Amino acid sequence: MTFTIHQTDPQSQARTGTLTTDHGPVQTPIFMPVGTAGTVKAVHQRELEHDINAEIILGNTYHLYLRPGLDILGQAGGLHRFNGWQRPILTDSGGYQVYSLSNTRKIKEEGVTFKSHIDGSPHIFTPEGVMDIQRTIGADIIMAFDECTPYPCEYDYARRSMDMTHRWLQRCITRFDETEGHYGYRQELFPIVQGSTYTDLRRRSAEVVASHERAGNAIGGLAVGEPAEQMYEMIGIVNEILPTNRPRYLMGVGTPANILEAIALGVDMFDCVMPTRNARHGILFTTEGIINIKNEKWRNDFSPIDAGVGGYASTHYSRAYLRHLIRSEEILGAQIASLHNLTFYLWLVREARQHIAAGDYVSWKNEMIARVMKRL
Amino acid sequence: MTFTIHQTDPQSQARTGTLTTDHGPVQTPIFMPVGTAGTVKAVHQRELEHDINAEIILGNTYHLYLRPGLDILGQAGGLHRFNGWQRPILTDSGGYQVYSLSNTRKIKEEGVTFKSHIDGSPHIFTPEGVMDIQRTIGADIIMAFDECTPYPCEYDYARRSMDMTHRWLQRCITRFDETEGHYGYRQELFPIVQGSTYTDLRRRSAEVVASHERAGNAIGGLAVGEPAEQMYEMIGIVNEILPTNRPRYLMGVGTPANILEAIALGVDMFDCVMPTRNARHGILFTTEGIINIKNEKWRNDFSPIDAGVGGYASTHYSRAYLRHLIRSEEILGAQIASLHNLTFYLWLVREARQHIAAGDYVSWKNEMIARVMKRL
Repeated sequence: MTFTIHQTDPQSQARTGTLTTDHGPVQTPIFMPVGTAGTVKAVHQRELEHDINAEIILGNTYHLYLRPGLDILGQAGGLHRFNGWQRPILTDSGGYQVYSLSNTRKIKEEGVTFKSHIDGSPHIFTPEGVMDIQRTIGADIIMAFDECTPYPCEYDYARRSMDMTHRWLQRCITRFDETEGHYGYRQELFPIVQGSTYTDLRRRSAEVVASHERAGNAIGGLAVGEPAEQMYEMIGIVNEILPTNRPRYLMGVGTPANILEAIALGVDMFDCVMPTRNARHGILFTTEGIINIKNEKWRNDFSPIDAGVGGYASTHYSRAYLRHLIRSEEILGAQIASLHNLTFYLWLVREARQHIAAGDYVSWKNEMIARVMKRL
Repeated sequence: MTFTIHQTDPQSQARTGTLTTDHGPVQTPIFMPVGTAGTVKAVHQRELEHDINAEIILGNTYHLYLRPGLDILGQAGGLHRFNGWQRPILTDSGGYQVYSLSNTRKIKEEGVTFKSHIDGSPHIFTPEGVMDIQRTIGADIIMAFDECTPYPCEYDYARRSMDMTHRWLQRCITRFDETEGHYGYRQELFPIVQGSTYTDLRRRSAEVVASHERAGNAIGGLAVGEPAEQMYEMIGIVNEILPTNRPRYLMGVGTPANILEAIALGVDMFDCVMPTRNARHGILFTTEGIINIKNEKWRNDFSPIDAGVGGYASTHYSRAYLRHLIRSEEILGAQIASLHNLTFYLWLVREARQHIAAGDYVSWKNEMIARVMKRL
């Protein structure tokens, strides 16, 4: 995997680049739609490619490990062949879902024992095991196994958790480097910075992560409830330490404003369930602001969902029709809204790249945030 | 609306034809996907057009009347403009849903009072009102308001109900003929033959319906639980009486076998929720037989869903992947399965047309029924 930086913004840390994987290139900054169980919910693979222009998607290790399971993914020849998506894939480490979804999890030095949220069956995730699982899933970029601390988090817990995450990271790297991909293409391991909202911990974690000199680095444990300003402060501190010549991935973030601010702080990659999850509840991100399509005001608005963003879902269907579908709990409502919101998110990062290249990123960002975060 | 017959099968009553509406032509025999609330569930409009090759879809008057409601449909300029489907649409009369979905319905000579299944609000459907509603929805083909008798049905009830349906038909025709379409294109009214499973009632009803000399005629009250052989017998009796030079629409039917047998009996148009409803439950119709995709045997079948039928959903995704999606209750599972099943149904009637044209319809039909109705 190579990462080439094309332009850097003179007034911020924003930059454009190309991340090249064996499944093709990714233009950064990029937003990665979340495909939890091997599917970006309510979106066909060809729609991801041709309508949304997604360049890379996520899979969740926890979900894929439980269902369809590693035997099926291995027999299929990996997730790309299983789900028919031939562009790059990134998998998380499963840590976040173990903490948020599973039952009776127990975190020990060895790893985490938990029970499946599907059938209650017992499982253990260890750093080594999670490397093996992600080798079998076959994502282009795989994540280290970490503990994502909640917010708020006591300093002592955050420090001890971070130290364990660093020990787990070393175990991940050892296992990853002594194994190979199963399917003939290269995989890369990204370590994750933790440290909650404590600046000294974040600095130390960033130093440890940077010292491993992996192909890319991630920032975890943010957007878990802390104020946005605190998140931006942590990103700024971490990005002073993470190498500039490697892609930086901010995990699980966020709103359009979060993404544009973090780009200004030097982040290159983002993922979040927000565009798809909100879509299913009728919350639309548009080039004019945020719409709750269930509201009465849209009932006879026969204009396109968002002419500004373009594309099939956003221009073929009207707001009134989408409102009807969402209120009627019709599947097509989730489809249209998901397709639209993801089209918007990919439009947003594409615009961001163009404004970084044009040298006016910061002023554009400030205008755009005011515009797209407005409630319509 | 015109109906031109191209070929008639020498060994059966099957025929091919073209029904021409102001929204374009429909090649018959045709299957019409059901778009209950203005959406064919889980299918985008462009998929209907380009993948499934649907030529006409249904809307349900009962559902559309309750939600989004006539004010919205009227302001939109009719259903075509509301949902962005520019090919022909047929609406049922709402009768069937009033009987099956609504609460505390009361059937009187004047019409039917019922309570909405959504919010319990009281409503009345009369023959005149249902004509006005369908004028506002703006379907190309609209249906007379009838009572669809259940199975089994006592002879006396069936006879009295049929007589009322005939009186309602006269009221429908009177109202329809003294009104005009709202949106500049022509609409046509199809009357409906009732009479339960009684041959004398079916004959009488067919005679009454034929006497009105409308642009097309429908057969209702079948596929409500009676044995298939009895349904075919009724269709045969009715089709001896309904004019051959007008399209015949068999309402709510059915399995691939039902459709192919009814084509041999001279039916031209079909609709049924089976392909989409079964799809959502993982039941797939394929060129090799019927698949319950939830079954263990498909878990590691990485072959396409149905290479024989062709098209995106059926060839891009594997059976193992679709099984995973359906078991995981992922929306994409409903999308793929619905797209596939409808592609299959439209493939089936297209094949039927070709074999009618080729003169070998009956032998092809018998082979095809054995093949596609087999449980895999």
